[in-house]
Order: sequence, then C-alpha cells, then structure tokens
Amino acid sequence: MQIHTSIPEVRAALQARRRIAFVPTMGNLHAGHIALMNEARSHGDCVVASIFVNRLQFGPNDDFDRYPRTLQADCEKLAAAGVEILFAPSEEVLYPEPQQYHVEPPAIQHQLDGEFRPGHFRGVATVVLKLFNIVQPQVALFGKKDYQQLMVLRHMTQQLALPIAIVGGETVRADDGLALSSRNAYLSVSERAEAARLHRLLKRIAATVHAGERDFVKLEREAVGELDQNGWKTDYVAVRRQSDLQLPQGSDERELVVLAASRLGAARLIDNVEIELANSH
Amino acid sequence: MQIHTSIPEVRAALQARRRIAFVPTMGNLHAGHIALMNEARSHGDCVVASIFVNRLQFGPNDDFDRYPRTLQADCEKLAAAGVEILFAPSEEVLYPEPQQYHVEPPAIQHQLDGEFRPGHFRGVATVVLKLFNIVQPQVALFGKKDYQQLMVLRHMTQQLALPIAIVGGETVRADDGLALSSRNAYLSVSERAEAARLHRLLKRIAATVHAGERDFVKLEREAVGELDQNGWKTDYVAVRRQSDLQLPQGSDERELVVLAASRLGAARLIDNVEIELANSH
Repeated sequence: MQIHTSIPEVRAALQARRRIAFVPTMGNLHAGHIALMNEARSHGDCVVASIFVNRLQFGPNDDFDRYPRTLQADCEKLAAAGVEILFAPSEEVLYPEPQQYHVEPPAIQHQLDGEFRPGHFRGVATVVLKLFNIVQPQVALFGKKDYQQLMVLRHMTQQLALPIAIVGGETVRADDGLALSSRNAYLSVSERAEAARLHRLLKRIAATVHAGERDFVKLEREAVGELDQNGWKTDYVAVRRQSDLQLPQGSDERELVVLAASRLGAARLIDNVEIELANSH
Repeated sequence: MQIHTSIPEVRAALQARRRIAFVPTMGNLHAGHIALMNEARSHGDCVVASIFVNRLQFGPNDDFDRYPRTLQADCEKLAAAGVEILFAPSEEVLYPEPQQYHVEPPAIQHQLDGEFRPGHFRGVATVVLKLFNIVQPQVALFGKKDYQQLMVLRHMTQQLALPIAIVGGETVRADDGLALSSRNAYLSVSERAEAARLHRLLKRIAATVHAGERDFVKLEREAVGELDQNGWKTDYVAVRRQSDLQLPQGSDERELVVLAASRLGAARLIDNVEIELANSH
C-alpha cells in the first residue's frame, strides 16, 4: 500500500487511475470501516482511503484532542483489506492557513445531530469537498451509521454537480447489536453492556411503526424515558423520512428511519434503523 | 464549435481532453471576453467557454431580468475566437432544484462590492464551483475588471484544494479608457461620454499614490466628491492591497489597487487600477 501525506504526491499517484473508489475516514479503523473498503473494491479498480481527524467538524467541547489516533494499526488493516493508496495528510497540509471558505449546508445542518454539534456538518462538508478535490474519485463510500452525514454529503455532491457517486455502507454491529464506533472505546465495561440498549430500542421502535403505530412523538418520548432511567443523557430520538430527514408528511411516507444520539458516560453514541413500510396501494 | 446545454453531454465531450482552459461568462460578449478566450488558447489545448446568467449572484434590486442576453451573436464571436466547446445551460440544468448548498466566502464577501450587493460573492463562488465541477478545467480565466471576484475565486480555489490554476486577464478599455462591460449598454449618449471619468479618476489616484501620497482617505473622499458633482452616485472608492483587498498596513505595502463602484444613470460601473510601488529597500 502506498502512503502519501502531501497533496501533489497523492495527485501524482492517482493520475493514471481510471476508476477510483474513495473511503474517507478519521482513522482508528474497526470492522465497519473495513467493510467499506471491501465494498469499495466492487466499485472501482483503485481503492483509496484517507485518514484525517478533522478539527473543523469538532466543537470546542467535543473530543478532538482525545479522539483515538492509531495510524500504524490502521495501515496494517488497510493493506490487508486491499487498499492501494492511503492519503494521510497532516493539519498543515490540509489547512495550511485557517479555513475561510466553507461549504454551507441548508437548515438540516442545525437539526438532529446538528442541533447538538454546531458547525459539525459544515466542517464535514468542507473537508469532504477538499478531499474529493484532491482524490477526484468516481465513487465515494460512507457508513450508514452516520446517517445524517451520509445524507448531507449525498445532497452536497448532487447540488455542487460533483461527478461522484455516493454509496452508503451498512452499519456493522457487535454481537449484541451495538454499532461499531471509535467512540465505543470511551465506555467502561458496565457501560459497554448497557450500550446495546440503544440499538434494541431503535429496533423496537421500527417494529412498532411497522406494526402500524403513527404517534412518533409518543414513541420518541417513551424511548427517551427508558434511556433516562438507565443512565443515559439523550440528545434526540426521532422518526424521520429517509430522503431528507424531515418529519414524515402524511401517511404515504414509506421510507422512514429512526435515529438517536445519547450519551452514556464519556461516550456520545449515535445509531439508526431504517424502516421500509410496505406500499399500501 | 460544439454547443452543449446538458451536463452529461459536456462531460462526455470533455472526457478525452488533456488540458482544458475555461472561461466562464454571463454572455453578451465584448472584446474583454474575447481577449480572455485568446489568452486561454495559450494555457490549454482545448478552450471551453460557458454562458450562464447566474440568478444566485443578483440581488432582488439588481438587473437580472434586463441583463442583456445575446446568445446567437455570442456564439459567432466564440467560434471566431477559436473556442472549441461552449457550455450554455438553462437554469433548469444548473439549478434543477433550489440551490441549498453554497460556498460561503469569508468577510471580504461583505466588503467593497459585497457591501452593496449582499449575497453576490456567495452566488458567484457557488456557481463557479459548480461550473468547475462540470468542466474540470486545468486553468480558468477571469477578467481583472471584476477584481474582487477574481480575488475571491482565486482564494476559493486554493482553500478548497481545487487542481485549477486561476489566471487574471487585463481589463480591455474603450479609446477613452472606459472599461468594457455589458452594463455600458445601459448608458445614454451623454452618460457614455461622462463615464470615462471613472477610469481617469482612478489613474489620477494611482499616479498620486505613486508620487508619495499616503492619505488614502483624503484621496477617496476627493474622488467621491468629484463624481458627486458630475451626476454619479458612488458606492465606494478605495485604495487596498492587491492580495486580499484589505486596508494597506504600514508603509511597506508595495502592491496596491484602487477600486471604485459608482452609478451613472441606470448603469452601475466598476473599475480598478493596480498600483505597483517601487521597493524602497
């Protein structure tokens, strides 16, 4: 695997490639990332990964400083997964001066996760656009665990006329259902056992909606209550439509998703479950 | 000359090109535009122009509706200038839905021209990024008459890591010095004669600064006064440093520019003159 840290270097390495499939990451790779790398191989003849912990998308109280950085182990995993090129720039390379030009997403950036992480999606959109401009892939893959991020990047790509297909990869879970995440490392042993509740709860809400329940507000309130009683501090539990994460309008919405973000100990965990309702027509 | 109106068509036409030099315009082409096309030929083996009157960069009181549209004559001029491909999309092609993702430039977007045209530079930056993503040129050319636009696009390109060289083309002028502009068509015969004052004034300020004057505020005030007395309504006359259009700091600034925007009758005219001071060291 080639590892490049400078923009001219990685551009030169990619110049002759026909079809690049790109997986941007913040490193500290787990099986969810590796599943994206494997899926990337079916989309391009050259798989490129990036590792960059992007300060722009962290708020002042977020975990930028303690976010786990494990470059050596990450490189071994990427090489084993058949990644051909890793772009791992320093902050000086990607932000040689303070970033002053941003991609400004619409109101969704202030909703759901955006309500609790001001500036987060602006920071994500800006760094991903820069990485796209450097790597110039034909396909880019992002995990569905970060559902709102995937939606924002999909819309950004369409709206800015980028010639890139955005592919969402299924969430990879531990045996008890907990979505794999670098932030799971912040959990104590007892918190780790409790953490599986989040996915169980979302699956239960999905099943209840599937069975016909349409009082989403009640479902959300009950879910927050259960999390509260078990030591969580919840930012949101929300049933939304998949396409744009807005509130479902009327009873003909068929593609829904229930999303949640909640804090357990030092970890802020997010997860979601898609709900596909049968067409009633 | 090939004329393409759809994004997939122009992308297909450009696929095999090695070095694309791109000149985005709003049409109604004059000798200033044609000079950019001619210069483009020295930068690439395929010259691409675009014509698109970009609603995003016009304010509600701006001249979007009456902006002159002369596609047929423009095509003849472009073909004669050796342009190989014209991209001339409709609004439905470039904005199939309302634009919700924008490039947000920093504070300079609210200064000078931006103070009098809220949202203008955001609209320019956003449409140019989209056109860049469609055409994917190696070089793009913009006229120096729109000095602030050139600076914003140059910085955007650097900050978003676009692999594009930005080239500024010299302003083309009528015999009496008036900078060529589509908006000159709004001038009556007597206004057209008066319009040459703007460039004379900027040249005089440049000469005065060159001769050692450093009281820029006085120069600006006197210039506004002279314009006032001759029927103009002035938005600004400002001496700034070339690199970022901020106020010159101290006496070691060597590369300055004097910029102005003023309204004469129905036309809002802008112009500028660069000032290169000899190095005193």
